[in-house]
Amino acid sequence: MRTIIVIAIGIFTFFALVQAEQSRLEHVTAKPEVLESKPFAEHYVVFHISTDDASIQELVLNNAQNLSSHYGVDSVAIEIVAYGLGLRLLFKENEQAKRIKSLAASGIRFSACENTMQKMKRTSRDLVSVAETVPTGVARIVELQEAGWAYIRP
Amino acid sequence: MRTIIVIAIGIFTFFALVQAEQSRLEHVTAKPEVLESKPFAEHYVVFHISTDDASIQELVLNNAQNLSSHYGVDSVAIEIVAYGLGLRLLFKENEQAKRIKSLAASGIRFSACENTMQKMKRTSRDLVSVAETVPTGVARIVELQEAGWAYIRP
Amino acid sequence: MRTIIVIAIGIFTFFALVQAEQSRLEHVTAKPEVLESKPFAEHYVVFHISTDDASIQELVLNNAQNLSSHYGVDSVAIEIVAYGLGLRLLFKENEQAKRIKSLAASGIRFSACENTMQKMKRTSRDLVSVAETVPTGVARIVELQEAGWAYIRP
Repeated sequence: MRTIIVIAIGIFTFFALVQAEQSRLEHVTAKPEVLESKPFAEHYVVFHISTDDASIQELVLNNAQNLSSHYGVDSVAIEIVAYGLGLRLLFKENEQAKRIKSLAASGIRFSACENTMQKMKRTSRDLVSVAETVPTGVARIVELQEAGWAYIRP
Repeated sequence: MRTIIVIAIGIFTFFALVQAEQSRLEHVTAKPEVLESKPFAEHYVVFHISTDDASIQELVLNNAQNLSSHYGVDSVAIEIVAYGLGLRLLFKENEQAKRIKSLAASGIRFSACENTMQKMKRTSRDLVSVAETVPTGVARIVELQEAGWAYIRP
Repeated sequence: MRTIIVIAIGIFTFFALVQAEQSRLEHVTAKPEVLESKPFAEHYVVFHISTDDASIQELVLNNAQNLSSHYGVDSVAIEIVAYGLGLRLLFKENEQAKRIKSLAASGIRFSACENTMQKMKRTSRDLVSVAETVPTGVARIVELQEAGWAYIRP
């Protein structure tokens, strides 16, 4: 009888510990589902651009590129979320369009806010081809932070 | 005797595990005490406004409103912390005063920095009636982040 | 025999719990190694400055000083990371140089981005003497956030 109790406690303890550790690891390493493209990323960074100040729009691209060089393209997941007047960074006619395409080719993700697009009466066809869209830019930034991403607002 | 040891270890293990899990959950879900008003919130977002640029002051209100619409008023806790020149957003005479009252009515919290108020020689009576005050705006933003809130600086 | 099993389980359980708690605490309290200077800090805050707007450069210094006063110098670790045009805050000839030295004396850390220095053809000798350098300013900010630091972009 006592032997059974001992074994039962042992088994219970073992699984409880395994479970506790798993749920801890799940929390610690929780990352959003967008990352099939970056299976080896060790750093996750979301950039916020909501101004049409050309020098800040250029800075956000410089920052993303420097981070990629610093860590290596495969070691860092980067997403640039554009909304408000910052959406203009992703307009086809923006002078940075060519550079954006080249950064996207290296795995940097560009997200345009659909709320802003509607307000500005723009559709996906008005955006640089590599841009993806998200329903609400600011909610996207919130959710990436919730998933453990670092946040940079240049 | 051995039975007592077995039971003692069992009880110890059980409470130790319960305790470990509780302290883990406390950390993971720790939220500041301000939230009696939002018992069902699933998202927590603090906005930083420290500029008197009218377009950024309007943007921060737009962002807060869009987040509320996106998640639903009860699912997101939002606090806008104003300090430095950004305090002017909360002045009674600001053109956004009416809109701020309406956003506050929907549960968005507005916090004015008392440090800044003192520097600008303003009292609570100079602020829009729904504004609350905090001793140091930047410390408020730090503490909300420490409690797991996402941070947005439009 | 059963006694040995009981004791073995007890020992195993004890160390497993200690280990689980330690790894939890390590995660929760993980802080970068820069903090020998602030062994009693309870708050960790990184400030981002990437603009040469003089009013924002002054604001970032005010914010750091207010945080120090609010929590007490020993209770808060503060690092100001300057990159892009924000690097100019750390130039020797900046009008804030004297104030920066005094803030550094109270334990606030100033980090200059080497990437930016190279681009601007500046060396450490062009910077205020208390400034330290980091290879990539934006990566520094990312890593401090990963280590649990709050982020403020005035």
